[in-house]
Amino acid sequence: MAKFKLTPWEVEGDIDYERLVSDFGVSYITDKIKSYLQDSHPLLRREVYFAHRDFDKWINAYESGKKVSVITGRGPSERMHIGHLVPFMVAKALQDKFNCEVYIPISDDEKFYVKEDLSFDNAVNYSKENILDLIALGFNPKKTFIFRDFEYTSIYLYAAKVAKRINYSMAKSVFGLKPEHNIGWSFYPAMQTAHILFPQFNVGAHFTVTPVGIDQDPFLRIARDVAVHKDFKFEKPTALHAKFIPSLAGSAKMSSSGDHVIFLTDSAKEVKRKINKYAFSGGQATIEEHRAKGGDPDVDISYQYLRMFFESDDQKLKEIHDNYKSGNLLSGELKKILIDKINVFLEEHQKKREDAKKIVDLFLLKNK
Amino acid sequence: MAKFKLTPWEVEGDIDYERLVSDFGVSYITDKIKSYLQDSHPLLRREVYFAHRDFDKWINAYESGKKVSVITGRGPSERMHIGHLVPFMVAKALQDKFNCEVYIPISDDEKFYVKEDLSFDNAVNYSKENILDLIALGFNPKKTFIFRDFEYTSIYLYAAKVAKRINYSMAKSVFGLKPEHNIGWSFYPAMQTAHILFPQFNVGAHFTVTPVGIDQDPFLRIARDVAVHKDFKFEKPTALHAKFIPSLAGSAKMSSSGDHVIFLTDSAKEVKRKINKYAFSGGQATIEEHRAKGGDPDVDISYQYLRMFFESDDQKLKEIHDNYKSGNLLSGELKKILIDKINVFLEEHQKKREDAKKIVDLFLLKNK
Repeated sequence: MAKFKLTPWEVEGDIDYERLVSDFGVSYITDKIKSYLQDSHPLLRREVYFAHRDFDKWINAYESGKKVSVITGRGPSERMHIGHLVPFMVAKALQDKFNCEVYIPISDDEKFYVKEDLSFDNAVNYSKENILDLIALGFNPKKTFIFRDFEYTSIYLYAAKVAKRINYSMAKSVFGLKPEHNIGWSFYPAMQTAHILFPQFNVGAHFTVTPVGIDQDPFLRIARDVAVHKDFKFEKPTALHAKFIPSLAGSAKMSSSGDHVIFLTDSAKEVKRKINKYAFSGGQATIEEHRAKGGDPDVDISYQYLRMFFESDDQKLKEIHDNYKSGNLLSGELKKILIDKINVFLEEHQKKREDAKKIVDLFLLKNK
Repeated sequence: MAKFKLTPWEVEGDIDYERLVSDFGVSYITDKIKSYLQDSHPLLRREVYFAHRDFDKWINAYESGKKVSVITGRGPSERMHIGHLVPFMVAKALQDKFNCEVYIPISDDEKFYVKEDLSFDNAVNYSKENILDLIALGFNPKKTFIFRDFEYTSIYLYAAKVAKRINYSMAKSVFGLKPEHNIGWSFYPAMQTAHILFPQFNVGAHFTVTPVGIDQDPFLRIARDVAVHKDFKFEKPTALHAKFIPSLAGSAKMSSSGDHVIFLTDSAKEVKRKINKYAFSGGQATIEEHRAKGGDPDVDISYQYLRMFFESDDQKLKEIHDNYKSGNLLSGELKKILIDKINVFLEEHQKKREDAKKIVDLFLLKNK
């Protein structure tokens, strides 16, 4: 059996997803769910989001004409990379498919508490910048609600109600709190839970879904416990669980630093350099050997990025896969395909991000 | 040496104030401070407020024409009793004397976190009701700023900045946190510290004073430590420390329940009943014995309440004292004096409380 270590703040070794599904007691995506997602974003229909908690109930609610919504948040960072967009691409895809509301809390407070050297002003500035990147994805301004904890401080009212139902020892075990951590950090589990429950605080009980890396499932479990407390009587939040998105070098979880990720601000030249230099290749050592034996698309990061994000055409993806496997397509050629795709995406993204500055106010919640 | 136990949430035995002053490292009120307080409220000039931390610096700042202010808060309760008014009577007296701003944070959040059975709505309602009792004391609406944490949620911004500088183990030792306490409770030390520092967050560094029971001094010490952190560069908050205000039965600290306190809503009849039945008497067992030996005003609660609150005329107070001590004044007669004084006060208070409803908005801070 593969050995690995997984907490919401630590990943080590090769993740055994089958064991996680069984240990966590979550479910694999069903055929019914798949049928709804088959024309959706590659992240959904190619099962990067591979498991769920009660998402079938969300679908059932939708089918019976009831309100459903999506909630997914972000702890802001100085620069966003493509991996950061994953849950928001999914939220956008769900909004397109189900015409539902999307709630996006930005936890500038969390980052401020957890990062010793992050100033208050920088936490706020990163949030504002990150919000532009999210709006650039094309959310519907009439159905998308974004807020920062340090601006929409009314969230404290909900966080307080939640805080009363989470004791320190529970928060400590789920969030890995230590006595030397500051007490903002101790409080943050209440804030995060209030985020997950926010759509229900806002408009009353209904089914929500949170697209989330499977390592974050423990947070969902706290929110599900709190949701059904008699103070609230909400529906248990449902979740869609993703596998890890690998870094360029192929490690399990993307890090925000270094050359192993593609930042949304990277130039075309920078993208080319990073992919060529760092994207882990499934090819052979020499061209001759590659032509003879073929490459391995399953471990090739360029192929995986195309599969997960950038080649939405199934037929084209299959051709790339087969050509790479047969040795017809060389690693450099495969990388070139990815580089071009990413650069088209980034050019478009950077344009939309500029446009977002003009409409950002349409998305932001105002204090009570 | 007297044995006693004192934490901010527990009092046992006979308080040895001399030892507290030495253990805590606070100072007795100086002659210079006394000279400012000599025509002030009995609580100040008769040295119920008997010690201080750096209040001489506050006075010096005032003398050199610098801004000074008062900050004193309240955790709301269903009904307020006379003991609850103590720090606010002092704040009002300081405002009258020094024409300074007074800040009054109301911690509905604290009570909500700490009292398992207190609902959110009741915490809010008690706050609103308590605020009327405070305004009834006659604060200047142009220089007095009142806010509830559950309304003025902008306070979360300051609490967050403070929270980053208080770690859990420190909060645990000063506030007696336990693992089974909820995480709102864990966070509250940051909120309370933000309250004490609020005037400086609001208008910049200056000297503030908090009138406070000496048992609450540890909270002041945390605020003083945080104030001078490089994130803030505030002045250390100064404090005026009070002895305990005894309950009718004479025990060290008033409790909010039972017959041993005078609620601000008590009827004249109720006041008469409580004082006659419960006010601890320094008199003798029989009238004959009292006439012969005289009473002991030092332990007589009726005399003490007159001294601390209700007989501002020094000459009259002295006559009462001497007549009681000589046996001329009987315990029943002394009680009658107090009953009449309290009832005049309460009748007036209840009228002013009604008037407060019309002007409450002048005092309340609005969210950013």
